[in-house]
Amino acid sequence: MKDIKILKGNIIFTKNIKSFEVHENSYIVINKNIVVGIFKQLPEIYKDVKVTDYNDALIIPSFVDLHIHAPQYLQMGIGLNLELIDWLNQYTFKNEKLFSDVNHAKKVYPHFVEALYENGTLRSCIFATIHNKSNQILVEELAKKKLSAYVGKVNMDQNAPSNLIQTTEDSIRETIEFIEENSNSELIKPIITPRFAPSCTRDLLKQLGNLSIDMKVPIQTHLAETKNEVKWVKQLFPDCKSYSHVYKKHKLYCNSKTIMAHAIHLTKKEINLAKHENVYIVHCPNSNMNLTSGVMPLTHYLDKGIKVGLGSDVGAGHKIGMQDTIASAIQCSKIRHAINPSERILSESEAFYLGTKLNGSFFGKTGSFEQDYLFDALVIKDEHPLVDSLKPLERLQRFIYCGDSRSIIARYLEGQLI
Amino acid sequence: MKDIKILKGNIIFTKNIKSFEVHENSYIVINKNIVVGIFKQLPEIYKDVKVTDYNDALIIPSFVDLHIHAPQYLQMGIGLNLELIDWLNQYTFKNEKLFSDVNHAKKVYPHFVEALYENGTLRSCIFATIHNKSNQILVEELAKKKLSAYVGKVNMDQNAPSNLIQTTEDSIRETIEFIEENSNSELIKPIITPRFAPSCTRDLLKQLGNLSIDMKVPIQTHLAETKNEVKWVKQLFPDCKSYSHVYKKHKLYCNSKTIMAHAIHLTKKEINLAKHENVYIVHCPNSNMNLTSGVMPLTHYLDKGIKVGLGSDVGAGHKIGMQDTIASAIQCSKIRHAINPSERILSESEAFYLGTKLNGSFFGKTGSFEQDYLFDALVIKDEHPLVDSLKPLERLQRFIYCGDSRSIIARYLEGQLI
Repeated sequence: MKDIKILKGNIIFTKNIKSFEVHENSYIVINKNIVVGIFKQLPEIYKDVKVTDYNDALIIPSFVDLHIHAPQYLQMGIGLNLELIDWLNQYTFKNEKLFSDVNHAKKVYPHFVEALYENGTLRSCIFATIHNKSNQILVEELAKKKLSAYVGKVNMDQNAPSNLIQTTEDSIRETIEFIEENSNSELIKPIITPRFAPSCTRDLLKQLGNLSIDMKVPIQTHLAETKNEVKWVKQLFPDCKSYSHVYKKHKLYCNSKTIMAHAIHLTKKEINLAKHENVYIVHCPNSNMNLTSGVMPLTHYLDKGIKVGLGSDVGAGHKIGMQDTIASAIQCSKIRHAINPSERILSESEAFYLGTKLNGSFFGKTGSFEQDYLFDALVIKDEHPLVDSLKPLERLQRFIYCGDSRSIIARYLEGQLI
Repeated sequence: MKDIKILKGNIIFTKNIKSFEVHENSYIVINKNIVVGIFKQLPEIYKDVKVTDYNDALIIPSFVDLHIHAPQYLQMGIGLNLELIDWLNQYTFKNEKLFSDVNHAKKVYPHFVEALYENGTLRSCIFATIHNKSNQILVEELAKKKLSAYVGKVNMDQNAPSNLIQTTEDSIRETIEFIEENSNSELIKPIITPRFAPSCTRDLLKQLGNLSIDMKVPIQTHLAETKNEVKWVKQLFPDCKSYSHVYKKHKLYCNSKTIMAHAIHLTKKEINLAKHENVYIVHCPNSNMNLTSGVMPLTHYLDKGIKVGLGSDVGAGHKIGMQDTIASAIQCSKIRHAINPSERILSESEAFYLGTKLNGSFFGKTGSFEQDYLFDALVIKDEHPLVDSLKPLERLQRFIYCGDSRSIIARYLEGQLI
């Protein structure tokens, strides 16, 4: 019994996308790091185990963010009057350049990691920068806070300011170094991260695709965020059938776990490809709106059987808390529905499922409280003048829409209070 | 000099809608309750007055909310999977009924008022409920916190649950009582508040219109929030040219200050009427999205010369902080622009102007730091890993997009620290 941990509270999660599973005033039993089960009455066998009683607090799976840029934490909320390419040139690249100085990373990344922790994003897929020394600081800070993440050293060898471009050779060599340096951690792993097709030569893309296969490392990048970007990619890669096919051609779209952020402007063929290759498409609703990129047809994709997750996309997204991204995803689907009633609205359980269980699946069995899932959880103590009059599910809705980090009173990753 | 107060900090406001006015490290001099001027060097005449030095904090006009429902503070974030009429019937009316018990108001309204205060909304136009005893509790709580508001006793005499409907006679009599009871306060004033056309008989509308003229009391109501509501009004008032004309016909759309919340689905004639009568149209972007009502064509209205303000519309809006409403208004305009490029994007200065100076104009000369304006202000101490690297305006942008009440360290209403 020494590895058994028991928590009590109002337990909510989404085993299935279509509905919430609510266990009022129940016990969740954890063995070491995984869920044993949820019980209304505690089984006799556990009678001698100490129960951590969170009383009427909510216990929910912790959040997972499938698309976030660590350096851009500095620029959240700034320069959002621009569209993507101008925003990159006028703000983002200037900001990322600063991370050539490792002392800058030492100043900034602790704050970024603290914000992830505070907001209950215990796992995330992170774009760092091209600078490995600073990237390693990010890894260390995540480790200190006991968070889990995939961290990507960014690759660019064209179409960016000169001090953010590396030679293809350096870019590949440093990618290998970053992967090797971080190959032994359980919680923090490397991910191959070409920024997006325009900033990578064919040679770089090809070598990164091969690396992903050879070193068994997943991939994250951007896809079809704006119409102008799609046109640009067509000019740069006239031989490829579509933007998606640029990645596909270079083995960056199938061979292992792949995250494609945004994917707002896809052709029918690309939609079919996304389904066929079973890649993760990541919806970043706040970023969609802030950079005037358009809004991804999320429920259309879901109904086509595409695997869609959610990302905050900080700093084009202005909120780091995933509950804000969940609420914004619902709002965006409502706007699309109001314009085109044949596109349905994203339900609350669907949105929550995406931000927990579906996003979590990129990390393995996490994001749900089913048996054998890693116990990653947040404890939510919400404020309301008449909290007793609300059902637990109403309180969760309220936290999703109105809550912030102040309501998160405990965080568990793989069974450990962190 | 005893009535002179001097604050120092980074002072930002919008005298004009098209740009921010930024005074770095400057002094703002207040005489009793009004602004004397802003100075980079403090004039010799004030050399013996104590300066309250907020160092590098931002000093901005406090927020004004032109549309918010006090009882709905309880239901923020709950039931937002429904559209307006279902949401009213399944959640809102049930919630408002509870305020027939004055003890309920005593429990709830202090929290609502505290939330306004915390979030820097120092003036607001509030829908209460039909229940005068509870309405008076709201007034008392606002007074205790030294906030300014127009508070409306809601009028309904048809098409609502029986226990929320009054006879026309009772509704009018209690409206007069509420107005008379609150006619002597400087900061908190009554406002005539027919809920919306469908819940009022012609007789009630007519008497309210006359009351507004006779007692010189302004008006607030809802207009054209959803397409189904517009159809319903057409059925109920077939003789009126449009929804707006229902109010116009009953003298509720011209004769004094008038607030029309939402106004999403207006005909061309109604747009012209709004301009001609110079009413306040209130955009509530979060509510627009949450109830799938559509999105008001804000910049189109502004460019037509209509006076458009902003409202949180709590509880259909899920954020009480006006900085969230300002950011959402920009986001909504970007979505409309992405769909229809002829509709332009709302700029940051425009959105800020609406939430401060334009909204403030409903209360008189407030919402700006021009000479002779009432000094209503917030002091913002924002968090950022490298705050010194940011310009004051970038910090304001960041507060608008990413900030919350935690950053507000002081609040001034009419020159007084509250």
